[in-house]
Amino acid sequence: MKQFMDKNFLLNTPTAEHLYHDYAAKMPIIDYHCHLSPQEICEDRVFETITQVWLGGDHYKWRIMRAHGIDEKYITGDGDDREKFRAWAKTISMAIGNPLYHWSHLELRNYFGFDGYLNEDNADEVYDMCNEKLKTMSARQMIAMSDVTHLCTTDDPADDLHWHRLIREDSSFGTKVLPAWRPDKAMNVQAADWPEYIGKLASVSGVDICSYDTLIKALKKRMDFFAENGCTVSDHGMPDVAYVPASPEAVNAVFLKALKGGQVSSEEYRIFRTAFLLDLGREYAGKNWVMQLHYGVIRDNHRKVFAKLGPDAGIDSIGSAAPLSELAGFLNALAETDELPKTIVYSLNPNDNAAIESILACFQEGPCVSKMQHGAAWWFNDHKLGMIDQMTSLANEGMLADFVGMLTDSRSFLSYARHEYFRRILCGLIGDWVENGEYPADEKALKKITEGICYQNAKQYFGF
Amino acid sequence: MKQFMDKNFLLNTPTAEHLYHDYAAKMPIIDYHCHLSPQEICEDRVFETITQVWLGGDHYKWRIMRAHGIDEKYITGDGDDREKFRAWAKTISMAIGNPLYHWSHLELRNYFGFDGYLNEDNADEVYDMCNEKLKTMSARQMIAMSDVTHLCTTDDPADDLHWHRLIREDSSFGTKVLPAWRPDKAMNVQAADWPEYIGKLASVSGVDICSYDTLIKALKKRMDFFAENGCTVSDHGMPDVAYVPASPEAVNAVFLKALKGGQVSSEEYRIFRTAFLLDLGREYAGKNWVMQLHYGVIRDNHRKVFAKLGPDAGIDSIGSAAPLSELAGFLNALAETDELPKTIVYSLNPNDNAAIESILACFQEGPCVSKMQHGAAWWFNDHKLGMIDQMTSLANEGMLADFVGMLTDSRSFLSYARHEYFRRILCGLIGDWVENGEYPADEKALKKITEGICYQNAKQYFGF
Amino acid sequence: MKQFMDKNFLLNTPTAEHLYHDYAAKMPIIDYHCHLSPQEICEDRVFETITQVWLGGDHYKWRIMRAHGIDEKYITGDGDDREKFRAWAKTISMAIGNPLYHWSHLELRNYFGFDGYLNEDNADEVYDMCNEKLKTMSARQMIAMSDVTHLCTTDDPADDLHWHRLIREDSSFGTKVLPAWRPDKAMNVQAADWPEYIGKLASVSGVDICSYDTLIKALKKRMDFFAENGCTVSDHGMPDVAYVPASPEAVNAVFLKALKGGQVSSEEYRIFRTAFLLDLGREYAGKNWVMQLHYGVIRDNHRKVFAKLGPDAGIDSIGSAAPLSELAGFLNALAETDELPKTIVYSLNPNDNAAIESILACFQEGPCVSKMQHGAAWWFNDHKLGMIDQMTSLANEGMLADFVGMLTDSRSFLSYARHEYFRRILCGLIGDWVENGEYPADEKALKKITEGICYQNAKQYFGF
Repeated sequence: MKQFMDKNFLLNTPTAEHLYHDYAAKMPIIDYHCHLSPQEICEDRVFETITQVWLGGDHYKWRIMRAHGIDEKYITGDGDDREKFRAWAKTISMAIGNPLYHWSHLELRNYFGFDGYLNEDNADEVYDMCNEKLKTMSARQMIAMSDVTHLCTTDDPADDLHWHRLIREDSSFGTKVLPAWRPDKAMNVQAADWPEYIGKLASVSGVDICSYDTLIKALKKRMDFFAENGCTVSDHGMPDVAYVPASPEAVNAVFLKALKGGQVSSEEYRIFRTAFLLDLGREYAGKNWVMQLHYGVIRDNHRKVFAKLGPDAGIDSIGSAAPLSELAGFLNALAETDELPKTIVYSLNPNDNAAIESILACFQEGPCVSKMQHGAAWWFNDHKLGMIDQMTSLANEGMLADFVGMLTDSRSFLSYARHEYFRRILCGLIGDWVENGEYPADEKALKKITEGICYQNAKQYFGF
Repeated sequence: MKQFMDKNFLLNTPTAEHLYHDYAAKMPIIDYHCHLSPQEICEDRVFETITQVWLGGDHYKWRIMRAHGIDEKYITGDGDDREKFRAWAKTISMAIGNPLYHWSHLELRNYFGFDGYLNEDNADEVYDMCNEKLKTMSARQMIAMSDVTHLCTTDDPADDLHWHRLIREDSSFGTKVLPAWRPDKAMNVQAADWPEYIGKLASVSGVDICSYDTLIKALKKRMDFFAENGCTVSDHGMPDVAYVPASPEAVNAVFLKALKGGQVSSEEYRIFRTAFLLDLGREYAGKNWVMQLHYGVIRDNHRKVFAKLGPDAGIDSIGSAAPLSELAGFLNALAETDELPKTIVYSLNPNDNAAIESILACFQEGPCVSKMQHGAAWWFNDHKLGMIDQMTSLANEGMLADFVGMLTDSRSFLSYARHEYFRRILCGLIGDWVENGEYPADEKALKKITEGICYQNAKQYFGF
Repeated sequence: MKQFMDKNFLLNTPTAEHLYHDYAAKMPIIDYHCHLSPQEICEDRVFETITQVWLGGDHYKWRIMRAHGIDEKYITGDGDDREKFRAWAKTISMAIGNPLYHWSHLELRNYFGFDGYLNEDNADEVYDMCNEKLKTMSARQMIAMSDVTHLCTTDDPADDLHWHRLIREDSSFGTKVLPAWRPDKAMNVQAADWPEYIGKLASVSGVDICSYDTLIKALKKRMDFFAENGCTVSDHGMPDVAYVPASPEAVNAVFLKALKGGQVSSEEYRIFRTAFLLDLGREYAGKNWVMQLHYGVIRDNHRKVFAKLGPDAGIDSIGSAAPLSELAGFLNALAETDELPKTIVYSLNPNDNAAIESILACFQEGPCVSKMQHGAAWWFNDHKLGMIDQMTSLANEGMLADFVGMLTDSRSFLSYARHEYFRRILCGLIGDWVENGEYPADEKALKKITEGICYQNAKQYFGF
């Protein structure tokens, strides 16, 4: 029996151990998509309790606490931090097979030096120990401990990137903190506060936004501003990748309807989204930015909880994706005029894996290495099996060796442990192939593949 | 090489062996959903031949016999019992990788003491041996041999629960045989005999059913009657979980159309089903019953066989499920008014696994432990890989430790061997995790998890 | 560590080694579906360079070269053969986990005696060595080296089968080269050149094709001709299996619209396809032909590449399939009148596996053994995991032992190595079951199962 989460955790062959310890573990981290707060990085936030770090905003954890029957008081309610941590310890101790079990214990090991396993019996002891350590462990220190060379936050077009500028000007911090462009609010014509947002965007951009075309004009000005601030990555969240081409007049009609506060139908939203993403995609191609597409989500399913807690409350789910022909049609529309940017596709529905590989493969073209990328296993799929599925699916139909690898997509400074989790799984997978005679024990090639997926491919792909 | 189905069958690690033999195998069985006949239990039926038990109603077996080219005469036709058994032996001997291979041999071991493997050569010998044993092995004895503490049959609202009452009054039988409420006939407004059924229900309930509202009124009276007879579980079978909210008038219009024998469209049926399940769901919440939803089936595909043999003839299949947003919408409609009952969701389409986990997680709430349950791998998924998929899917996104575990869903008194099959697979899975260092070798926690999934969780969840 | 692709490649147990070396490897090959050119077989083509064999038409390879950032010049462009081979060597050396890695190296071992691994360093050496061997290795020799007893090409109804006749008359060649009937051009009323094709078919058949009925009449005459030439297998490629029954008038209206060059809608095409496949399916049943249905594809996604290179350019993908109820409805429509032929179903979407098993099982009937077949893992699924998925899915719900097994579906004479790949995976899978105690070590049964899936089942099923 292997010891619980020892140094060879998830490394089941000598080759896996060698690849992990000698190559993967030594590579720094590029976190090209996360939700860290640039303000907290800039101000170098210190947390008072491990509860604040772990349960403050982590709706992954909220979900399994609810599933374990914990009272909401000790999840998002007014329970005190120690009681909440006890409730968490009670829950996690039973969470066999859940990635949170591994993430939490990797964080306890890497940042707090605790190598036991958390449960109700030792909850108080662990709580006190973590809080003591947190006194001298700030946001920047956690990032530095994780050897992060670049991280991309998630930013709205109307953002003034004030905190990014301050961080950039502070030479004492070695990690590059770059903005990433996420214009979801500008796209979501179904949101009640969209007209208000458009007003804000008009003000920030100095463009009178009175039509679809002027909206795009305003966004382009903001993209120039983001580019000046080091942005090379965009990101979009949406229910599905729509491809419903329509006339400029039809698109503008949706714009005008939404601006007047009218009710935009799903189909109208799909028409709008198609035009919006095509226009921005062309701009990304021109700027050599990467376009990230996140889809397949149904958000805020439990309306009563949403009314109380707002978005990101642990009440989102996997949704049915659009017809695959629309994803293909959308990419083709950009490719036809040679305006398809580098693109990373993430679907929350794991059933899409094979189809995504097969569609992306149609649009690959040099000289960019794997210009079209199937993104790392995302959100509900971000567990051992989900990662193995995404990587074997990519390997089966494309070039795993050219994969840009892991990101955290997280709000927590401790989440860099997920890169370790990913790298162990990656090395385990490659190790199995090599030891099983399915790929040669070619040291040079294995080093290149491992270091590539862990770091070098992302560095080259994003132009860092 | 392990011996064929020896005592450590499917237990591939010392931890798996320990968990199975020391904990799982010792737990009794709660069979919270089956199709056993209360009359046969009450009358303590004795079977003349193993063919009657095995091939009399088991359409799983019929399907692979047809696939193996056996003449229908020896499947559902007028072939004699010995000849049918020979045809079955010929088929099963070639059924490598099929769960029927394991189920059949577990039954031969556990109930008949046969530990070889069945084929054409020994078919006659096995046939005679089994028939000899069956002379002294009645329905109740098979249940008792399986250590079943509770079993829930599947019963129509119009049923008088006569046999359940008789069993209850007979103190000589230790197993609690409880009715489960399955109002499919009342819901299926597309069935030709629906008006006739409504007449029967009116008569039994004493309610003049002339509208949708009076139908619900009649059903509530019958639910009270079922509750008096120990029922705490409901069950619904349907093509998909629909959520098409409509006005009371629109729902009643479908009722009236169906009552007059009109042709109800798929969309009208979906409207009706939405209202029907919401109204009954609210009642379940009030009564603290469990709501089971079985969907994703296309029934009776081969019409010619259906015309000859009727339903449950081995001609059903997996169907495409409804949009996932409808399942979420349906559950939210109940949750919004705090009327969501404990719910177990079963989809026949295994592609739904991850999405189901992610949707159910949105609706979890204490104090009930895992109020929302993803049901055990069902029907065509009830095999080793299907069970592993369902359990790892649950573990990845929720709390496997809180799972209510296995049910038989069977018409046969020998099917309790499937609980053993499930428990071996469960212990194998947990054993792999522990031996691989993915969960600590924490005896106390592992005992609680294993005994919980095998028995204790169901006991608590159903209130037995 | 196992050596890279040694003699026990993919055989991880003694049972797997025994089954492969003693049974599977010794069986000849029936390639019941491929795209080899009968002209090249007849003329016994000799290839000048390995680049011509490997990259001339193999769009699998093109896709990963593009993914690896190779310039199109060295893929389908005017780069010279040596440079193209170097680009391929560079690509394949990094293609860890991709089936092309294994296929290519099996071909290098089996046909060229090279047992290293290809990369940029040895590309020139391997190139020269292969070209030298190709001088004395013709198309027929490659087939003979592979021990192929029967192969079915893919042929248009208007084909005169000239080359098939010449091959048949040449007693020096031991392999039976049979035509297979693929009337896609006659079915595709959406194609711009359909009216032209109908003219050609009218001319060849001698039937004045002026209506849907006369089209079917012409096709029946051609089927008689194909039957005279040894054909027993048909094949259809389509986006999905549609079942949209319509009146004869409605079907003929689509015919007439298309004949006049009108734009046929997707729904009209589905109506047409339904009638067309039902009518042909009935004819297949009468002739005891096998009907193959290939679906779930979106073709020619990247229109710019299509404009340049035409079809089969590596720009096809997996598509969403039709509702499963349509596949069931289509099969039932034939079964209702006892006119369902032997049928093999292939979906490109691997999510369909379980549903396909469950639908096909509804239509099995003797005396044919596994009359309904789930086809071997196809195209983008034709890799180790895809094959294991298809075979375990079949085993879980049906009779794997009765599976007709592997086909190449290839344009290359070297692709017979894929049969070896399949057989190793098959034996590995069976070996795992036996060594794990899940199936008895019954020599007689295992021999029958292994030889059956490798050869005997296909021989019996196709009537060879």
